[in-house]
Amino acid sequence: MTSVPTGGPVEFAAGNGLIHRRHLLSQGAFLAGAGGIAWLAPTSADAEPLAVPQWSKEPGLPFLGYGQPSRFEANVKRVTFNPPNEPGSGVAFTPIQQLDGMITPNGLHFERSHSGIPDIDPDAHRLVIHGLVKRPLVFTLDALAHYPMESRITFLECGGNGGQLYRPQPAAGTAQTLQGLISCAEWTGVRLSTLLDEAGADPRAQWVLAEGADAASMSRSIPIAKAMKDAIIALYQNGERVRPSNGYPMRLLLPGYEGNMNVKWLRRLKLVEAPLMARDETSHYTMLLKNGKAWQFYFPQDVKSVVVRPSPGQTMRAAGFYEISGLAWSGKGRIAKVEISADAGKSWALAVLQEPVLPVAVTRFRMAWQWDGGPATLQSRATDEAGNVQPTRDRLIAERGDKTFYHCNAITSWGVGQNGEVKHVYA
Amino acid sequence: MTSVPTGGPVEFAAGNGLIHRRHLLSQGAFLAGAGGIAWLAPTSADAEPLAVPQWSKEPGLPFLGYGQPSRFEANVKRVTFNPPNEPGSGVAFTPIQQLDGMITPNGLHFERSHSGIPDIDPDAHRLVIHGLVKRPLVFTLDALAHYPMESRITFLECGGNGGQLYRPQPAAGTAQTLQGLISCAEWTGVRLSTLLDEAGADPRAQWVLAEGADAASMSRSIPIAKAMKDAIIALYQNGERVRPSNGYPMRLLLPGYEGNMNVKWLRRLKLVEAPLMARDETSHYTMLLKNGKAWQFYFPQDVKSVVVRPSPGQTMRAAGFYEISGLAWSGKGRIAKVEISADAGKSWALAVLQEPVLPVAVTRFRMAWQWDGGPATLQSRATDEAGNVQPTRDRLIAERGDKTFYHCNAITSWGVGQNGEVKHVYA
Repeated sequence: MTSVPTGGPVEFAAGNGLIHRRHLLSQGAFLAGAGGIAWLAPTSADAEPLAVPQWSKEPGLPFLGYGQPSRFEANVKRVTFNPPNEPGSGVAFTPIQQLDGMITPNGLHFERSHSGIPDIDPDAHRLVIHGLVKRPLVFTLDALAHYPMESRITFLECGGNGGQLYRPQPAAGTAQTLQGLISCAEWTGVRLSTLLDEAGADPRAQWVLAEGADAASMSRSIPIAKAMKDAIIALYQNGERVRPSNGYPMRLLLPGYEGNMNVKWLRRLKLVEAPLMARDETSHYTMLLKNGKAWQFYFPQDVKSVVVRPSPGQTMRAAGFYEISGLAWSGKGRIAKVEISADAGKSWALAVLQEPVLPVAVTRFRMAWQWDGGPATLQSRATDEAGNVQPTRDRLIAERGDKTFYHCNAITSWGVGQNGEVKHVYA
Repeated sequence: MTSVPTGGPVEFAAGNGLIHRRHLLSQGAFLAGAGGIAWLAPTSADAEPLAVPQWSKEPGLPFLGYGQPSRFEANVKRVTFNPPNEPGSGVAFTPIQQLDGMITPNGLHFERSHSGIPDIDPDAHRLVIHGLVKRPLVFTLDALAHYPMESRITFLECGGNGGQLYRPQPAAGTAQTLQGLISCAEWTGVRLSTLLDEAGADPRAQWVLAEGADAASMSRSIPIAKAMKDAIIALYQNGERVRPSNGYPMRLLLPGYEGNMNVKWLRRLKLVEAPLMARDETSHYTMLLKNGKAWQFYFPQDVKSVVVRPSPGQTMRAAGFYEISGLAWSGKGRIAKVEISADAGKSWALAVLQEPVLPVAVTRFRMAWQWDGGPATLQSRATDEAGNVQPTRDRLIAERGDKTFYHCNAITSWGVGQNGEVKHVYA
């Protein structure tokens, strides 16, 4: 049965059925006051008595020391991609289209590894700070536990996230495989500035080489200004110890910088005068521009957003009300607004941003949508508090070319077909 | 080696070594300007060359679709307690002394079950809204997915958390077993008011009976005002589907109310004129006062805090700097301040509150402490934005008596001995 509440008229905010956000914001008034919305949702309770299932008739399962998701959620998992002939190298994409909220659970945080996930004994692990310092220091995990900690809810995004949008034709895939190298967690640890103060940084030190304990010795050069401003030696991820795939027992956290610079399994920080041009900042993670020159370093991640529901792989079953939901983030501060279009950018409506809107964190956005059953092209466009606006794909490529794979923050477009099927399109 | 930086003097804020929070708040100035702090932490890097461990010499482990903690963290788990002869009934305590930050990872969220954890097939599960409504409704999980969602980072606390503090002598135990029925997560779902508006609540309906699909049919009566104000049918927990132990596929979320009222495995909401005096609000979860009368219902959880580090089970190894860290929360709004005493309440100093400080969420607090190696009694005292102050144990028991087990928000005291051992004490 389709229930159609009566009441005040729905106020549309943009073309193709986007509903004004007052309907989402005014508590309790969304339905009673929204006559004309065709609910797909409930059936009348009169139709059938409520069955008593087996699990209500017998004692359930016992407690676990460390809990797991329901067995019925086994399809909610990271999709992994390992390039041929590169053992241990690859990515694992977060299933952003199956999640909701701001936090990514630790089991589903995206990963990028260059030589697999080292199985580190925390008691044997050491962090060394050396180079241009007065006092080179070695830290055990126990030693770090004595320092003041701080927490920060922040996103991490791979520099290559969304890189398939540089392709001339829209790649097949899901929100997960096209844009799922983005996650958000609460990280807790010791400010790097605290440790650098203790080691006594030499004024000549302008960069810090950060090296991981993985077999790739993944290494990146970090400007000392960033190291002193807000870098953290992260020991905890969403409350518990950092996961092995995210750098156990410790990783560098550089809020807003591409994932790769947030060096995992951190073992060494060397203060130096100039960047070391490490393998992973020359063979990878540089941006070749259309004029043949390249950007060697690219620091804060740009403002970006993506609709995750509806998204490819999902099929809309009937005309009526849907919630459009997605994620927005910027390495340059808070998200100021997210606009949604259902008509390929011809008209835009303001989405509701889920509080709290935190700097350099993922912000969940939501928009009420009355789908008429016809074709639609869904887009989201984020603006950050610094005034940066997410560009169209055409504009990004016009400015930058399509010879790179990195830092693509272009608007992503999902096409909804007459049959309700959702696909990645260019629009 | 103990490193002793030189610089400006440490400013103490209260007795027995509590250091003024300016040292934690002023970025980069904590160490360089804090001469006299005896760091226990690093050793000189000159002492030994950094060894190259085996895990840096060979490719690591492959990706997992759903990741797990390091095998070296196997001791970070919930401690469970099942009363004899009550199959499926009991609690699982969050290891709050081993975690940091605000978020509790889903695998470690506390649990209270009355008949085990039902293994619910989400496709077969139904939520019914009936009773004093115009249109009784049945919702599938798919149907609920069409409604507008919202997220809320909020704590859940068992009504019995800390109940052992009513005992005449201090119970042995850890922060986990004495106060670990507190957790905090980001919950996402549909506002209950949205569904009640659609069902059309009769004005005579003043209460809502909420019933779970577990074999205990755990049931509680909820005031309709709370149901309309901010109750959520929670479908997601820290981004992923609610865990089986926390109500999969859906639970009632009543921000600030005792855990038990946040009915798990929610299957039925019946709108009624008066509370139904369900088994779990008569045989349990009532508060017997010293005059022999009892409080039948007790709604928002009181303001409360607990130091989790240092805490019982931990031994402090040497005099010097430590960070005191803990959790504060109130069902009545934001935490306004947390004060720390190291001398059993004779003097107090303001802790640093980790931002963001959210209403009805856990707030992490931190305090720098120079332990002189002698006896100390650590306490924390939280105040919420409504002006409620956490009472001493003596005051709480003077007002209320000690015949109940519920809603104990008294100040918890940890005694530090000359040998560095930490124990639960009354002070």
